[in-house]
Amino acid sequence: MCRWLGYAGSPIRIEELVFNAQHSLVEQSRNARFTSHLTNADGFGIGWYGTGAGPGVYRSVAPAWSDRNLQDLSAQITSPLFLAHVRATTGTPVQQTNCHPFRHGRWLFVHNGFIADYLRLRRDLALGVAPDLFPHIEGTTDSELMFHLALTFGLEDEPLRALERMAGFVEETARRHGVERPLQMTVGMSDGERLYAARYASDQEANSLYVSNDVRDVRELYPENERFRHLSDEARAVVSEPLGDLPGVWRAITPATAVIVQPGADEVVPFTPR
Amino acid sequence: MCRWLGYAGSPIRIEELVFNAQHSLVEQSRNARFTSHLTNADGFGIGWYGTGAGPGVYRSVAPAWSDRNLQDLSAQITSPLFLAHVRATTGTPVQQTNCHPFRHGRWLFVHNGFIADYLRLRRDLALGVAPDLFPHIEGTTDSELMFHLALTFGLEDEPLRALERMAGFVEETARRHGVERPLQMTVGMSDGERLYAARYASDQEANSLYVSNDVRDVRELYPENERFRHLSDEARAVVSEPLGDLPGVWRAITPATAVIVQPGADEVVPFTPR
Amino acid sequence: MCRWLGYAGSPIRIEELVFNAQHSLVEQSRNARFTSHLTNADGFGIGWYGTGAGPGVYRSVAPAWSDRNLQDLSAQITSPLFLAHVRATTGTPVQQTNCHPFRHGRWLFVHNGFIADYLRLRRDLALGVAPDLFPHIEGTTDSELMFHLALTFGLEDEPLRALERMAGFVEETARRHGVERPLQMTVGMSDGERLYAARYASDQEANSLYVSNDVRDVRELYPENERFRHLSDEARAVVSEPLGDLPGVWRAITPATAVIVQPGADEVVPFTPR
Amino acid sequence: MCRWLGYAGSPIRIEELVFNAQHSLVEQSRNARFTSHLTNADGFGIGWYGTGAGPGVYRSVAPAWSDRNLQDLSAQITSPLFLAHVRATTGTPVQQTNCHPFRHGRWLFVHNGFIADYLRLRRDLALGVAPDLFPHIEGTTDSELMFHLALTFGLEDEPLRALERMAGFVEETARRHGVERPLQMTVGMSDGERLYAARYASDQEANSLYVSNDVRDVRELYPENERFRHLSDEARAVVSEPLGDLPGVWRAITPATAVIVQPGADEVVPFTPR
Repeated sequence: MCRWLGYAGSPIRIEELVFNAQHSLVEQSRNARFTSHLTNADGFGIGWYGTGAGPGVYRSVAPAWSDRNLQDLSAQITSPLFLAHVRATTGTPVQQTNCHPFRHGRWLFVHNGFIADYLRLRRDLALGVAPDLFPHIEGTTDSELMFHLALTFGLEDEPLRALERMAGFVEETARRHGVERPLQMTVGMSDGERLYAARYASDQEANSLYVSNDVRDVRELYPENERFRHLSDEARAVVSEPLGDLPGVWRAITPATAVIVQPGADEVVPFTPR
Repeated sequence: MCRWLGYAGSPIRIEELVFNAQHSLVEQSRNARFTSHLTNADGFGIGWYGTGAGPGVYRSVAPAWSDRNLQDLSAQITSPLFLAHVRATTGTPVQQTNCHPFRHGRWLFVHNGFIADYLRLRRDLALGVAPDLFPHIEGTTDSELMFHLALTFGLEDEPLRALERMAGFVEETARRHGVERPLQMTVGMSDGERLYAARYASDQEANSLYVSNDVRDVRELYPENERFRHLSDEARAVVSEPLGDLPGVWRAITPATAVIVQPGADEVVPFTPR
Repeated sequence: MCRWLGYAGSPIRIEELVFNAQHSLVEQSRNARFTSHLTNADGFGIGWYGTGAGPGVYRSVAPAWSDRNLQDLSAQITSPLFLAHVRATTGTPVQQTNCHPFRHGRWLFVHNGFIADYLRLRRDLALGVAPDLFPHIEGTTDSELMFHLALTFGLEDEPLRALERMAGFVEETARRHGVERPLQMTVGMSDGERLYAARYASDQEANSLYVSNDVRDVRELYPENERFRHLSDEARAVVSEPLGDLPGVWRAITPATAVIVQPGADEVVPFTPR
Repeated sequence: MCRWLGYAGSPIRIEELVFNAQHSLVEQSRNARFTSHLTNADGFGIGWYGTGAGPGVYRSVAPAWSDRNLQDLSAQITSPLFLAHVRATTGTPVQQTNCHPFRHGRWLFVHNGFIADYLRLRRDLALGVAPDLFPHIEGTTDSELMFHLALTFGLEDEPLRALERMAGFVEETARRHGVERPLQMTVGMSDGERLYAARYASDQEANSLYVSNDVRDVRELYPENERFRHLSDEARAVVSEPLGDLPGVWRAITPATAVIVQPGADEVVPFTPR
């Protein structure tokens, strides 16, 4: 079912969230809690900003827990904004081009969920992708197609509106084919400035998605905690499931809602397929 | 640029052609002679008939020369009809789903060559694939798309005619986009009964393709040769380049021609895109 | 913790036990039941007799559940005697040379368990391997070292006695280093004629190991069952955990005991480290 | 036969030498010039200082030219001191633990060459490794063993003297076994402060090794060249073969000689096995 996380704030080593947290993303790759699918071992990826001209991406088909390069890179790379993803395939092949994050220009994109009856809808969905974007599709997942549909619908200018259009297009296409409850998604994306996170599902319970509370409040709750002390006031993480058991650190994102993590006040806005 | 071979005849171990010949396919993976691209190390695959209900396929992204499983499987598997392929990518990712042979039902398909300006043509070519076949496309190569176009055009009923239609469709699509010399191909395919091989290129020299001479004639030339003695009279191999230097064993297939290796007399027929 | 199975009897497709059983080995790779370690996704391997001069081996670092080649090969290969293994590393790298089965000449060897404090004991254990066997060690697991120690102690002549000596040598070496409860093992091995299985642990509960009951008795219990009907009377499987829930099919092998599956009556003998 | 490079100087992106030079290391992975073995596609690795507490390492079994992660990481990572290596195996398996650089604490180590008759000597060489270092050996190459022997002989205190002792130990061990011309090596190593490079072979021509000339001299030769203009005066590269054809940029390191690249004047010293 996949698990992912996004982080924006003062620069930290990627390993702090991917490896070193109590219920880190790598721990979730072998033992997820908030889903019936425990194992997320069909590849993984990290994408980050700050060490090169555009975002960097490292993806691999190995289970995250056994990839030594991931350990090393997560310990070496410090970033103020990154996404990480562990994959559980819903049927498409385990290959690097099917691993998240997907990238286009400055944008990164991760997804947890599925398009129901994807193989049946795939052709019509692919036809919705702009011809100049079509050649950039390198894998065969529903997730990468969703990204390219959102790009087609204007992701780079109006990110959430484009994501809503993508969701609307998927639902409309599914309706035409008589596919019910077509879309299940939590999506994380970024242009290097902001971190966007959306939680949505058509006619069903949406997959879990959590955002960390204000660091200042968390610090007050746990004044002794080293980890919270060295985070900037505006640091924020969005996660498929909480990285630890401490009460007061995480809150669920409401279904059909999106969060924008950005310099200054973050935003929470409704998410409505168009 | 890829190298491939096909064999039909008395059952032999796959290693006889893939490893044990003087200029075997694995040798060609590191040191091809009949092409400017010496190294064919972007994955490989074997497909064979006879050990299961349909054809078996083993594919890997490793260079053929270092894959121990390939050594073992080639030594273990005996087959009367098989195809093998070593890949040199023309740009698409090195992943198992991009390795040949491709399979559909009882059919196997290998290709050496390219569609010029493939990424630009890809969408229009994909639209030519029958909607019910479209979901079976698992990789991103021009080769797999060519196979599914040929399936769309009736490969299972009229193999060579469907291949000609595919070539015609590719050329027509390329013409519309102003792409010159669009198609370069040697193709091998089989349904488990016959081995089909075609050599063709639009407005350019076609890649090399050879077929072995009649085993009876070869045996007369080399009466002491153990290898030839244990082959059946009708055994035949088709190869991107000869597996050895012995004169009189191999002859080039004429460009714009296809060969059908089958029980009884083999056939050589013109190949004309439609 | 690893899971493995061995089969000897009328030739069957490998997939029958590896994929098609209710709680097949591949199912155990994601969801083992008889151990606290649920996931066995650090590579896998199959070894079989009957299609080539010696045993064939196919090993890979991918989780067994996502490896398409394993699906194909298991469906293609029919064998009267095979071993299969899914790995959960106890620390050594995930690489093909660390996957089971290990092979030497006609022998195959699989192991579930560990040598306690292995890295500390490794050098002294390695020194116990005969100098002419030492170069054949290709990986870095305790399991492969146990195999080469057993080979050193005469495995090819007196298989179980050599295995007992190996266990004794490991325990003795551990004792010298002050390592407690040094050995946990269920071992499967074969020379292509017999299937040997041993269950043993020093001063602790031994890992689970089961053997199938006499096919004739099982058939009487389940006269309608197709699967049992087409097995030969002498067919026998040894498994880390039962492949299904049907009562009366499996019985636990007593700790400190070995089973020899062979033409004619099978044998159960005590297993005592020497 | 392997190709490698080392760099020390003003921080540059790793891609500048690994990808962007005329005859870059990745180009050498498919088409080496200064050796009879053209293809170095049995895995690769990079090791660098400056982005984390100790050196980072990224290694993979793929050919360097097709690994997308290497492209990304080389473009993202800036470092003042790094080593990179492309491997051509002399027989040991293609696996990550056999890829260079090897790492111990702050040290990185790369090697091009071989120990003659390695499998025969392997056990005696392994016995020379200090027992507390023995467990750190993770792969099966002669190169990693050479590194651990040098560590045993004091690499961390007297790097070149330890390397000479290692070479002496290998030659002495080989002599005992009657192995002639036992050692062929160019070695690169670093502790993050200095870059050490040695070229040596016993009784035969040593593999090629080059060092770049003084940047100030090179700049005078090519005043228009952008690449040279942005390098610091003390920047220095050591390479198996030159990264380009410009005259006056590279000079061969004399056989049986070592170079120390360091802040202030570099050193050239004799290399004599002890």
